[in-house]
Amino acid sequence: MLQSKLFAKTRREDPKDEVAKNAKLLIRAGFIHKESAGVYAFLPLGLKTLNKICQIIREEMNTLGAQEVQLTALQAPELWQKTDRWSDDKVDNWFKTELKSGGELGLGFTHEEPFAAIMSENVSSYKDLPLAVYQIQTKFRNELRAKSGIIRGREFLMKDLYSFHTNEKDLDEYHLKVRQAYENIFQRLGIADRTFFTFASGGVFSEFSYEFQTLAEAGEDLIYVDQEQKIAVNKEVYTTEVLAKQNLDKTKLKECQSIEVGNIFKLGTRFSEALGLDFVTESGERQPVVMGSYGLGPSRLMGVLAEILSDDKGLIWPLAVAPMALHLISLDQDEVALRLLTDLESAGIEALFDDRAVSAGEKFADADLLGLPYRVVVSAKNLATNQLEIKNRQSGAVEFIPVLELVAWAEKNLRP
Amino acid sequence: MLQSKLFAKTRREDPKDEVAKNAKLLIRAGFIHKESAGVYAFLPLGLKTLNKICQIIREEMNTLGAQEVQLTALQAPELWQKTDRWSDDKVDNWFKTELKSGGELGLGFTHEEPFAAIMSENVSSYKDLPLAVYQIQTKFRNELRAKSGIIRGREFLMKDLYSFHTNEKDLDEYHLKVRQAYENIFQRLGIADRTFFTFASGGVFSEFSYEFQTLAEAGEDLIYVDQEQKIAVNKEVYTTEVLAKQNLDKTKLKECQSIEVGNIFKLGTRFSEALGLDFVTESGERQPVVMGSYGLGPSRLMGVLAEILSDDKGLIWPLAVAPMALHLISLDQDEVALRLLTDLESAGIEALFDDRAVSAGEKFADADLLGLPYRVVVSAKNLATNQLEIKNRQSGAVEFIPVLELVAWAEKNLRP
Repeated sequence: MLQSKLFAKTRREDPKDEVAKNAKLLIRAGFIHKESAGVYAFLPLGLKTLNKICQIIREEMNTLGAQEVQLTALQAPELWQKTDRWSDDKVDNWFKTELKSGGELGLGFTHEEPFAAIMSENVSSYKDLPLAVYQIQTKFRNELRAKSGIIRGREFLMKDLYSFHTNEKDLDEYHLKVRQAYENIFQRLGIADRTFFTFASGGVFSEFSYEFQTLAEAGEDLIYVDQEQKIAVNKEVYTTEVLAKQNLDKTKLKECQSIEVGNIFKLGTRFSEALGLDFVTESGERQPVVMGSYGLGPSRLMGVLAEILSDDKGLIWPLAVAPMALHLISLDQDEVALRLLTDLESAGIEALFDDRAVSAGEKFADADLLGLPYRVVVSAKNLATNQLEIKNRQSGAVEFIPVLELVAWAEKNLRP
Repeated sequence: MLQSKLFAKTRREDPKDEVAKNAKLLIRAGFIHKESAGVYAFLPLGLKTLNKICQIIREEMNTLGAQEVQLTALQAPELWQKTDRWSDDKVDNWFKTELKSGGELGLGFTHEEPFAAIMSENVSSYKDLPLAVYQIQTKFRNELRAKSGIIRGREFLMKDLYSFHTNEKDLDEYHLKVRQAYENIFQRLGIADRTFFTFASGGVFSEFSYEFQTLAEAGEDLIYVDQEQKIAVNKEVYTTEVLAKQNLDKTKLKECQSIEVGNIFKLGTRFSEALGLDFVTESGERQPVVMGSYGLGPSRLMGVLAEILSDDKGLIWPLAVAPMALHLISLDQDEVALRLLTDLESAGIEALFDDRAVSAGEKFADADLLGLPYRVVVSAKNLATNQLEIKNRQSGAVEFIPVLELVAWAEKNLRP
C-alpha cells in the first residue's frame, strides 16, 4: 500500500486532551480518532490491527467449539428487570434511551440476560448441553470518567463468551479450557510473559472470579504476583485467608500495577433461574442450566499493546497484529521500492511504502511512530552492493539482504 | 458441521408477533432472534450469511480503492448542531441518551458529519483528493413502527461509503464507478435482474438522489420501471418534467412495488462548508471539499434475499451467501454421511450434516426451511448402486453422482 494514499496523517504533537499513552500514540500515528471522551473511531491502520486481534480471538473461540453469533446493543427492560439489573440504582453504567413509540431501551453493557433468554428458547434437554456461544460486539458503558484511551471506553468492542452446562463440575472443567484458550491468545499477542491468571472478587456470583491481568505502569489495578506459579491475587481479595486457600506465600508475592485484559465468571444458576433457562435431566427432572461467562476486550487489548509495547519514538506492534509487517522507505530510490512493493503484494505480503514527498528524517520518524515490525530501507548506497537494510523495530537489530531476496526473506520471516 | 451441535433450533410455527415474511422465515429457520420490535440478533447460520454479504460488499469497496474504517455509534451534539441535524425537529429518528458526567449523546443514524470532521483534520491540499472511505457499522434509527423484520430495523448494519473531491465533475465521474460496484454486488447476490437504478428525490442535497430498488411484493416503495433501459423512477419524482429529462417514455413504464437496497447522494459542499472541510487548490485558493455518500444495508439485503428468494417451504439462498452450500441428509446411513462430511471439510468445503435423531420427513422439511443450495441424500437404496442424490433447492433439479465423486463434484460446482 502507498502511504500517500492513506488518508489518516501522522502528527508530531500529542493531542492536548489525552492523558493516556495509548491514546496519544494511536492518535499521533493515525490509528484512531477521538470522537468524544471514551469514544474512538478506528482509522485504516487501526482497524487492520483491531481486526487481526479479533481474528486471533475468533480462531481460539472456534477451536473451543463455541458458536459465533451477534446480539444487539438495544436492550428492552423486561429481561433485565427479571434479574434486577435494569434499575440505575443497581447498575451504574447504563446508557438509556427513549423509543419514539413509547418505552425505554438500554444499550447493552454485557449480555448475560439476552443470552440466557435465547437459550431458554433453544435448550430443553440435557442432550442440548453443554454448549458455548460467543460474539465480538460493541458494548456501551456510561463511565463517569473516561481518561484511559481505548483501554476503558464508553463504547468498545468486547468478545463475550457464555457457556451452558448441566452441572457445576462440567462448568469447572470447561472454564479450564477457556483459561487455556485465553493463554493461547495472550501468547499469540506477545503479552503472555507479563499476563497473570488472577484471583479476584466473585461479586454476587461466587467466591472468586478469575481475571487475566497484564503488568503495566498505567494499570488501574493492583495485584500481588507469584512469578514462579504465574498466578496473582487482586488487591480486592488480598487477605490471609485467600492466600492460604490458594497456597500462596505472602513473602514471595510482588505488588504490581496491572490492567485487566480478560475475566471469567462462574455464574451458576443466577441468570438461568431468573430467565427460565432450564433443562430436563436424564431422569426426567427439570433443573436450571449452570452458566459461565468469559470476557475479553479486543479494543482494550489493542490499547494495552500500545501502552506496554512502545518506546519514546512510538508504537511497536507484534508481527501477529501489526497492520502490515513491512515499512518500505526509499532514499531517492522510489522506482526500486515501488517494484519491491509490487513483488511483495503479488506474493500476498502486505507492506506500506512511504512514497510521500517528505524528508528522509520525517519518513524514519513516522516509521518509528507507526511501529510496523520491520523497516526496509532502499538507498543508492546499499543498492550499489545490491543490498537492502532491514531493521527490526523492537530489537533495533539491523541486517542486510540481497535485493532480490526480499520476497523470500519475507516469506520466511513474516508468516505467522 | 453437525446439525445436532447447532444450538438454534428450527420451528414449525410462524412467530406470532411478526408480519414480514423475511422475519417469519429467518426466525423459523433459526437464522435470527427477535430481541424487540425492529431489533434482531444474528444466530450462527444467520451470522454466516450476513458475513458473506458483508465480505462481497467489502471486496467491491476495496476494488474501488476505498479505505475501510470503523466510526462510532455514540455521537456528541457539536458536529450535528453545525449542520442543523441535532434537533429532533429536524431529524425524527434520533435515539438520544444522557451521559452520567453530564450532557447528551445520540446514536448515529448516518455518519456524514463525523466523516467530514475527520477529513477536516487530514485533508489540506488538492493533492490529498480524491479519496473514499467506508465502514460496515451498526446504525440506530428510532423508527415509530418496525414491522418489516430485518428490512427496516431500529438497529441494523450499514455499509456507508463517503467520497471527497475537488470538484463536482470528479464526484460525477466517481459516482458512476460506485454505481458499477453496486451493480457487481447485486450481480453476486443474485438479484441484479430485478434491481433497478432509480431516480429519486434529492431532498435538500440536490435535484435527484439515486436509489437501487429491488422488485418485491413486500416493497414499501412504488417505482416506474423501464425494463429495456434497466432504469426506474421513484413515485416521489414521477412527473412529466422528470420523465422528459431522463428521456423516459411514460407508456413503456410499469408500476412496481420495490425495496430500496442502496442509495447514492451527491452532497456537494453542504457538510464540508458547515464542518470546515476545505482544501487549498493548485492555484492556492481555499475551497470546500465536494462530497458524495453511498449507502447499502447488509442486513436489509439479507432480508430482501429471504423475502424474494424463498417459497412456501422456506428459504432459498444463493450459493454466494448461503451459510454452507451442502446439506447432508442420511436415511439410516449416518456413518457414510459422517465420512462424507469429514472428506468435504478436509477439502475446505463447508457442509451441514443433519445427524439429529428425528424422522426423515422432519429432516427434509428442515432442509427446505434452511434453504442451503444443495441437499445431498445418503440412503441405502442409492448406496446399493454407489450413488448419492443431489437436489438443487432452487430449481428442484435432481442428479445422481457416484459416492466417491462428491468432493470433486463440490469443488467443481460450489467454488464461487
